[in-house]
Amino acid sequence: MDYQKRLRALRGKIQEQKVEALLITHLPDVRYLCGFTGSNAALAVTQKHAVMFTDGRYTAQAKQETRGARVVIAKKSALREACAWLEKSGMKKAYFDPEHTTVFALGMMREAISKRRQQTFFQPLAKPLIAELRMVKDAEELLLMRKAALTGCQVFDAVLPHIEPGVPEVELAATLEFFSRSLGADGMSFETIVASGKRSAFPHGRATAEKLPRKGFVTLDFGVILSGYCSDMTRTVYLGKAGREERSAYEAVLEAQEAAVAAVRPGVTCGDVDEAARQVLRKAGLAKYFTHSTGHGVGIEIHEPPRVAAKQEQVLTQGMVITIEPGIYIEGKFGIRIEDMVAVTESGASILTSAPKAMIQL
Amino acid sequence: MDYQKRLRALRGKIQEQKVEALLITHLPDVRYLCGFTGSNAALAVTQKHAVMFTDGRYTAQAKQETRGARVVIAKKSALREACAWLEKSGMKKAYFDPEHTTVFALGMMREAISKRRQQTFFQPLAKPLIAELRMVKDAEELLLMRKAALTGCQVFDAVLPHIEPGVPEVELAATLEFFSRSLGADGMSFETIVASGKRSAFPHGRATAEKLPRKGFVTLDFGVILSGYCSDMTRTVYLGKAGREERSAYEAVLEAQEAAVAAVRPGVTCGDVDEAARQVLRKAGLAKYFTHSTGHGVGIEIHEPPRVAAKQEQVLTQGMVITIEPGIYIEGKFGIRIEDMVAVTESGASILTSAPKAMIQL
Repeated sequence: MDYQKRLRALRGKIQEQKVEALLITHLPDVRYLCGFTGSNAALAVTQKHAVMFTDGRYTAQAKQETRGARVVIAKKSALREACAWLEKSGMKKAYFDPEHTTVFALGMMREAISKRRQQTFFQPLAKPLIAELRMVKDAEELLLMRKAALTGCQVFDAVLPHIEPGVPEVELAATLEFFSRSLGADGMSFETIVASGKRSAFPHGRATAEKLPRKGFVTLDFGVILSGYCSDMTRTVYLGKAGREERSAYEAVLEAQEAAVAAVRPGVTCGDVDEAARQVLRKAGLAKYFTHSTGHGVGIEIHEPPRVAAKQEQVLTQGMVITIEPGIYIEGKFGIRIEDMVAVTESGASILTSAPKAMIQL
Repeated sequence: MDYQKRLRALRGKIQEQKVEALLITHLPDVRYLCGFTGSNAALAVTQKHAVMFTDGRYTAQAKQETRGARVVIAKKSALREACAWLEKSGMKKAYFDPEHTTVFALGMMREAISKRRQQTFFQPLAKPLIAELRMVKDAEELLLMRKAALTGCQVFDAVLPHIEPGVPEVELAATLEFFSRSLGADGMSFETIVASGKRSAFPHGRATAEKLPRKGFVTLDFGVILSGYCSDMTRTVYLGKAGREERSAYEAVLEAQEAAVAAVRPGVTCGDVDEAARQVLRKAGLAKYFTHSTGHGVGIEIHEPPRVAAKQEQVLTQGMVITIEPGIYIEGKFGIRIEDMVAVTESGASILTSAPKAMIQL
C-alpha cells in the first residue's frame, strides 16, 4: 500500500480546510493512513510530522507494520501522549473526528493538555476528511476488494451443496465460515446471517439452531476479510419448488437489484440509485416490504460512507465501492434479499460479486 | 433473562444519582436491559417508562425479542425520535453515557430537541451506571458464561490434534472456528489469534499464512459467543521438545497466572491481582517482557470493566467474571501467554476455563 501517498492526500485536504494538526484515533483510519493494525492507536498528523502512538503490547508489531509515521510506545496512555505531543508541536489547534471520538475521550484529551488551552485546543472537523479519502479506493485496494469479493463467491459455490432441509442454520454458517477460512479469509466481515423459512423475513436474522425447512427461502448474507478488506454479498435460494407468489416476489427483487446496479455511474447520486431499486418494487406493489436502504460503502470497514439511501445527495465517483442490496420482508411469510458489491468505474459499474443471481431451487 | 429485574436495578441506581431520565444507545447495554439484539437502538428510560426505538429492518425482531420496554419503529432516526420522546416526557434533563456517545451523536441529539433546551437538556452520566450493573453477573448469566467457557475448552481439545508443523496458522484458525460453530457458538468473540514460532512474541498476532514451525511455541487465543455471552481463553503449546529456557519461561508464566488466580476473591482490588502476577515474573527476571495488563472483565462484550491492571482500585465482588492472562513476549525469540476466565465466588475464584495448563508438547 502507498501510505505516503495517502498521507500526502490527507495533508492536501487538511491544508484546504486550514487544519494545522489532526488527531486520528479511529482504528480503520489509522490502518488506512499508516498500516498499523493494532487495537490501540492515536495518530498525530501535521504538515511536517506523523507520529503513531500505541502501547507496549504492540512494540514489535508497530515497528513491522507502520509506514510513513514515527512510532512511539506510550508508557501509560497512547491517546494522552498523542495529545501532549500535539500541544508541544506548537500548533494552535488540533482537530479530531467527532464521529469517532466519544464525549468521554474528548474529556481525556482535554485533560492531557495544559489547563488554559483545554477549551480551545481541540476542535471537531467540519467534514469527515479521512472517510472522504477512504470512500474512493485506489487501484491496489480495488484489486484486494475484487479478490475478497471473489473469495466470497467461491465460498457461496462451496456452500451450496450443504444447503439441505434439516440442517441447522448455525451448522450452515459454520460450514460457510470454514470454507471462508480455508480459502484464506482472515475472518468474517460480520456475523454470518442464515435466515430460513419464515425467519427469512428478519432482514438481519443471525443463524439460529432452527433447521432449514423442506420448503422455503434461505437467505445467506456474509462477508470475508481478506488482507484487511471486507467483502459483502447476499443470495437467497429456495429449498423445494417455489410457488407463484414466491417466484414473482423473487423476480421483483432481482429486477430491483439489477435496476439499481444499472443506475450506478459517476455523477449519479446515491439517492438516485436507491430510487432505481425502490421504483421497481413500487410497481410490483412490494415497496412497503423494502424496509431498509439500498446499500452502503464497503472497504476496510463493512459499513463505510457513502450511504445508498433515499435522498442521499452524495455523488458517486470512480473508485467507490458500494453494495446494492434491496430486499423485501413479509412478516409471517418470507423474505428475499439479493446483494452485490459494485465498483464505480469510469462510465458505469463493475459487479465484484459475480455469483449468479437467477433463482436457485435446491 | 430477568430484564424486569435489571430495569428495576437500573431505576434504583438512577434514583440514587438523581437522574430523571436516561438515554441508552450502547447496543450491549440495550441488549442487557431489554433483550433486543438489533444493530440500531436507542432506549429511553424514566422511572415510569422504558421505550426502545429502532428502525424498520427490525420490526419483527424487536417485537419478538424486547422485554420490559415498549417498542417504537422510528420512521427516520431511532436516536432522534428517542430524544424527542425524552423531551416530551416532561423531564428537565436526560443523561447519556459519555463513554459510548460520540461528539457527533451528541450534536444530533441536541438538534432533535427544541432550541432553547439544546445546551442544558443532555447531561453526561458521572458514573458508568450500566457498566457497573453488568460487571456483576447474575446466576443466569454465570451459567451461560460457564457454558461458553466450557465450549471454548471443548474447542481447544478438538483442535489439539490439528496443531502440526507445516499447517498454516490461518488453517488452524479455520479449524478452531469450525469446531466452535459445530459446538453451537453463534460466532467468535474476537478475531482468533494463532501466533507461532517467533510470531508468538506478538501478543496480539492474528493468524497469518505463516506455517507452524517444526519446533517452537504456538499461542492460541480465542473465544466463542454462546447465547450472547463471550468466552476468552489462551493456551500456549510447544511443537517439539522445548529447551531449558523455553521450559523455565513457561513455568514462570504459569506460576504468575496461578498466583493471580489465587489472589482473586471479594474485597481484593484489581491492582492486587495484577501485582500478584507481576511479582512472580519480577522474581523470574521476566517482568519487562510482560507488556500488558493481567486481564479484563468479560460478558456480553469481550472487553468490559473491570480492568485488571496495575494500580486499578476497583474492588472485586462476587459475580464478577474476569480474565487472568499474564504473558511474556521476547522479540525475535518467543512468546507465552496463559489465560483463564475466572468468576469471583463468595470466598475466592472459580476457573471457568478448565482446560489443562501444564505444558503440552506435541
